[in-house]
Amino acid sequence: MTHDLDTRFALAQTIARTAGAVARDYFDRRETLVIETKRDAQDVVSIADREVENLIRAAVADAHPDDGFLGEEYGLAAGNSGYTWVVDPIDGTSPFVNGMPNWCVSIAVLFDSKPVIGVIYAPCFEELYAAAAGRGAVLNGRVLTLDPSRTIRNAVTGIGANNYVTPAFVGKMVETLMDAGGNFIRNGSGALMLAYVAAGRLVGYYEPYMHAWDCLAGYCLVTEAGGWHHPFPVEGEQLTRGAPVLAAAPGAVDDLRRIAGI
Amino acid sequence: MTHDLDTRFALAQTIARTAGAVARDYFDRRETLVIETKRDAQDVVSIADREVENLIRAAVADAHPDDGFLGEEYGLAAGNSGYTWVVDPIDGTSPFVNGMPNWCVSIAVLFDSKPVIGVIYAPCFEELYAAAAGRGAVLNGRVLTLDPSRTIRNAVTGIGANNYVTPAFVGKMVETLMDAGGNFIRNGSGALMLAYVAAGRLVGYYEPYMHAWDCLAGYCLVTEAGGWHHPFPVEGEQLTRGAPVLAAAPGAVDDLRRIAGI
Repeated sequence: MTHDLDTRFALAQTIARTAGAVARDYFDRRETLVIETKRDAQDVVSIADREVENLIRAAVADAHPDDGFLGEEYGLAAGNSGYTWVVDPIDGTSPFVNGMPNWCVSIAVLFDSKPVIGVIYAPCFEELYAAAAGRGAVLNGRVLTLDPSRTIRNAVTGIGANNYVTPAFVGKMVETLMDAGGNFIRNGSGALMLAYVAAGRLVGYYEPYMHAWDCLAGYCLVTEAGGWHHPFPVEGEQLTRGAPVLAAAPGAVDDLRRIAGI
Repeated sequence: MTHDLDTRFALAQTIARTAGAVARDYFDRRETLVIETKRDAQDVVSIADREVENLIRAAVADAHPDDGFLGEEYGLAAGNSGYTWVVDPIDGTSPFVNGMPNWCVSIAVLFDSKPVIGVIYAPCFEELYAAAAGRGAVLNGRVLTLDPSRTIRNAVTGIGANNYVTPAFVGKMVETLMDAGGNFIRNGSGALMLAYVAAGRLVGYYEPYMHAWDCLAGYCLVTEAGGWHHPFPVEGEQLTRGAPVLAAAPGAVDDLRRIAGI
């Protein structure tokens, strides 16, 4: 499988850059995009999300027609190679449509139920985060290694939330984190904040409910940088359902697990 | 005063770019910076903040020796021209020292107790926000005009907090905003989020306690883009104290004032 993995790892990075460039082009002319809403007025999508997902899906199908593919916008197409690509074409659609730079393309590849490839590309920053199982994590080619001295008290924690949980729950999680001496950032893209955990910019990331396409690439990055993540269920239909997401540098794991209650 | 204002407006923009370039240079080699803490372990400062403030202070003193100057790091030096510069050399020091791009140089000029100039420069994005009383607001030269159809329910609100208020207060403000149908971002720089309000990227910004150097430039930008802000007390010693900060696009003012209770 080494060769198969390396081939897909290289492809994931190429696709992420190409998809990111297309998304960036939509971003630069976002005034012309028609914005639609999904679960509520804050849950938005545009033609950019769909076109970028189609582009990624086609590129994967072309190179590896037997691989499975799960995208946020068009769902799961099963494969039989053992590999499944899990893609969020634009993570952070809300920042994207509002003109903020905190959005990214997120591409994970699962093998044997584990995220063995994680690639996140943030076009507005020209930052490519890439990791593969046993090969480490890099940001624009620079190796990422987490600092065990960072804790929630001397570093910043990322958080996210959506309408799968109540406002009271979110308020309480903010209060609990701050009560423990933590400080929070929410930049609008969960995948990008997970990449920031791998890069040591955030000491951890917690969101009470996320989908596989939001977190699996980030999880692979965090693992390969030396961090920890909460298990995400990917067997069968679980792959398309949501779960709590928590990833952290070594010195923040215990505090954040206690805060999240997981 | 028209000529005096225009001269200072041009100078503020020149200084913001120069100071931003120096700060960016520190940012790019931030691993070598010694980070000190102020009020608590989350309240950080470095030589970059101090050097950039000194640079701005010297440039103002050189061109307008009779102007007053208030900086976050070195305090107030009174003047007698009627103009007072109010400067945060690096707003968002926490993102800055942690390697995140959300920080900026914030320069306001007060005249007759009003912020008549507001310039915010975000070096990682190469974005210069500039406004002067009666002259409108621009982002990299493009005129900013707020859209009255945006509300807290169809757009994103920025929030901030620090240890001047309790974790329970912050948790409650998050809960109240979300209960009202709002969604929040916190990118770590209050001044930059106020600039985002002027640019229509955020529909409003609320922080229960901020200082003059964090908000006055943003307030001038928001006003000139067609938005509203809560009054900030600048008379005498009040200028160096903190106050609640709230700025919003027209369609979000009532909701955010109710949520903030001001």
